[in-house]
Amino acid sequence: MDEKTKQDIIDIVGQENFTDSLIDLVSYSYDASEHSHRPTCAVWAETPEQVSEILKLANRERIPVIPRGAGTGLSGMAVPVKGGIVLDLNHMNKIVKISIEDRLAIVQAGVVYDDLERALVPHGFFFPPDPASGKVCTLGGNVATNAGGLKGAKYGTTRDYVLGLQVVLPDGRIMRTGSKTMKSVSGYDMTRLFVGSEGTLGVVTEITLKISPKPTETSTALATFGNLEDTGRALSETMQSGIIPSALEILGRETILAINQNTDLNLPEVDALILVETDGYTQEETDFQMKKVIEVFKKNNAKEIKEAKTKEEAEELWTARKSAYAVLARVMTHFVLEDVTVPMSNITDLLKGIEAISKKHDIQIATFGHAGDGNLHPQILYDGYDPDQVKRMEAASADLFQLAIDLGGTLTGEHGIGISKAPFMTLEHDPVAMDMMRSIKKTFDPNNILNPGKMALEV
Amino acid sequence: MDEKTKQDIIDIVGQENFTDSLIDLVSYSYDASEHSHRPTCAVWAETPEQVSEILKLANRERIPVIPRGAGTGLSGMAVPVKGGIVLDLNHMNKIVKISIEDRLAIVQAGVVYDDLERALVPHGFFFPPDPASGKVCTLGGNVATNAGGLKGAKYGTTRDYVLGLQVVLPDGRIMRTGSKTMKSVSGYDMTRLFVGSEGTLGVVTEITLKISPKPTETSTALATFGNLEDTGRALSETMQSGIIPSALEILGRETILAINQNTDLNLPEVDALILVETDGYTQEETDFQMKKVIEVFKKNNAKEIKEAKTKEEAEELWTARKSAYAVLARVMTHFVLEDVTVPMSNITDLLKGIEAISKKHDIQIATFGHAGDGNLHPQILYDGYDPDQVKRMEAASADLFQLAIDLGGTLTGEHGIGISKAPFMTLEHDPVAMDMMRSIKKTFDPNNILNPGKMALEV
Repeated sequence: MDEKTKQDIIDIVGQENFTDSLIDLVSYSYDASEHSHRPTCAVWAETPEQVSEILKLANRERIPVIPRGAGTGLSGMAVPVKGGIVLDLNHMNKIVKISIEDRLAIVQAGVVYDDLERALVPHGFFFPPDPASGKVCTLGGNVATNAGGLKGAKYGTTRDYVLGLQVVLPDGRIMRTGSKTMKSVSGYDMTRLFVGSEGTLGVVTEITLKISPKPTETSTALATFGNLEDTGRALSETMQSGIIPSALEILGRETILAINQNTDLNLPEVDALILVETDGYTQEETDFQMKKVIEVFKKNNAKEIKEAKTKEEAEELWTARKSAYAVLARVMTHFVLEDVTVPMSNITDLLKGIEAISKKHDIQIATFGHAGDGNLHPQILYDGYDPDQVKRMEAASADLFQLAIDLGGTLTGEHGIGISKAPFMTLEHDPVAMDMMRSIKKTFDPNNILNPGKMALEV
Repeated sequence: MDEKTKQDIIDIVGQENFTDSLIDLVSYSYDASEHSHRPTCAVWAETPEQVSEILKLANRERIPVIPRGAGTGLSGMAVPVKGGIVLDLNHMNKIVKISIEDRLAIVQAGVVYDDLERALVPHGFFFPPDPASGKVCTLGGNVATNAGGLKGAKYGTTRDYVLGLQVVLPDGRIMRTGSKTMKSVSGYDMTRLFVGSEGTLGVVTEITLKISPKPTETSTALATFGNLEDTGRALSETMQSGIIPSALEILGRETILAINQNTDLNLPEVDALILVETDGYTQEETDFQMKKVIEVFKKNNAKEIKEAKTKEEAEELWTARKSAYAVLARVMTHFVLEDVTVPMSNITDLLKGIEAISKKHDIQIATFGHAGDGNLHPQILYDGYDPDQVKRMEAASADLFQLAIDLGGTLTGEHGIGISKAPFMTLEHDPVAMDMMRSIKKTFDPNNILNPGKMALEV
């Protein structure tokens, strides 16, 4: 980047909001994936107008721009693979409006998920997706990746809650999509086109979210299983039992062991453990649903079923689940966290397939995930300094993707394509669909300046 | 259309699936809106391949193609304003698959909404949107218009249930979008770009729908109100009470009178009547929610509150609501049914504004609608043979749209833009958004052969 361009950027955001110091560029070269690449500089934008000016400049000069929230993405979507300007949106962190009457929250893109949740608690409302990184991830990032989480099976993902957006297009024009109403079918649904587009079509600066009243009562239970067949059938039959649990999570043996090694939770060391929560407004309602689930578990040979008797006991169980990713990250020097998702009828085959892939490549794969929507997170644990293990990790990853597609599933339930899954897009999408995605990209970003090198959008 | 082209079309679909007889063309010139225009011919397609061949021909010859389901649309989206080929999809009416285990149904575009509902009943599952025209409307039409209905406030609209599509593009290429999994964020969300696109981007031939277990218990009640302020506050406070009713419907005075004149339901003749349903798996749960709603109603001066004691009593109340559109259609020779939607905090202003517009233009407007998501259906009743009344109807319509936008709302909650609302699109959408919608149209349909003349997509 020449000095003139650098000065132009500084003129837009101010010296205090610009950096090209090595230590900052190294920080901005990573996200939570295994990828990294240094940007040329990074800026903190404070207004949509600044975002607009940066994009106008970048579009004119053909400089890549990589929008960034908290950098918690697991597929490399925030990694500046082609260099350029990292556009950090964390300073735009204002909750603009919460209207319980209108069932909506209007937030800037840099608002942290948990900050919004905390602001909603006094009203008895919530924004349901509940991503595991909720403590740090931003709502802009949630929109960019259509973030999911623990409540997906019953409450859906981010997509189901985005009513409207303010977006800055690659040429700097600012537009609004969607509506502030609960429903609208006025023109093309550009709102949801941006949801999950990983910052490749425009920069989302403001989000209008639908929020929901939070059911006041819950029941929580844990069940252990001696083999994957019973576990898979228990999961699948729960989802067809006529009720939808508010959470239905699985922890595999390797994950349980890692949790026990790193916490004092003392989980039973079995092949699989299912955590389930039902919710409602009355204890009768949550009990009724839990009874149905427990019947299914018993029928499928659950070894032990433990119902949480207090809120504290329930919370301890959820702490175990939420610690899975972090404790597994300590097992080896490196890991990749996959995100394969299949129709529920194939969940047993997915569980067994993951085990087979682990054996085939002689590499440790620990599994946990949102079993209620067929979304598992096989976490491949490996030594990144051992080229042979890296090779086996890559082969195991590729096999996992092929397995998910063979089972009628998708490469990614909630983590996105980014860099990691870009080479596998054609496994899932036919050539016409790939062509139309690329055409959409060209329509919005003809000079390919926004987050280039992601999602297999370049031919 | 020259004889050669006509013969080419017949060669694709067969003589029995082609018509250009006057009586058929007149039938195909209408939908449920006030618009009409004759097509050149109509065909019944039986396979995606036939759809593909028709589109290839039409694209080559630059002939408009108007995809059509049951023609129940209220905004003119199925009216062939530029002539051309009506592509009737009613013969593609096969339910391809129902998988309770996978929580999905795969249907061809011509399947009637109620036929799917009936097929789901034995499993205790349902596809929730519940459009008022469910007895006849097709699921392809539901997708094209993002159909909503009685269950919207709690269960959302069609968009929230479409997992994937088979689509034929204007150049004849067939593609698949989305996934068969409960969630996926693999590439751009083209699925939802087609939802609500009114047949202007591609022809949807097959739909993968998420289905849901149907709560087994309901409570139903009716409340009457003496003025619109109390009614509006009761609606708005219900929606912020911490629960979400499974239905919350309003009937205004004119609607009540028309129902009483045409049925033996004997509704109380008040300013407004609210119908409410709560649902769950236990009677305790539905009662608890209903108690909350009734508290809100009482606080806001409900005159009479009647809880249905039996399923039959409840069904009678819903029959009243569902008859509104039809009984009002009999009041005058003509009507238009509007679809304005506002944030809940402005529902009282919308109710009062409709009354004011009725007075201002001295024209009868009867109101009912899905109050729980701020979506009202003011039905303007007029004599279409009286040019002065037509003029006043048009002026009242325009005022209604402006009112909805002034109240932070949208032109259409669930009926779509079509022809009727196309001139008003710029009230709601900024020039950049309009430009991008037109660019999306050009990307998918560069020759503008698919349902031209709709949604203000032509500059």
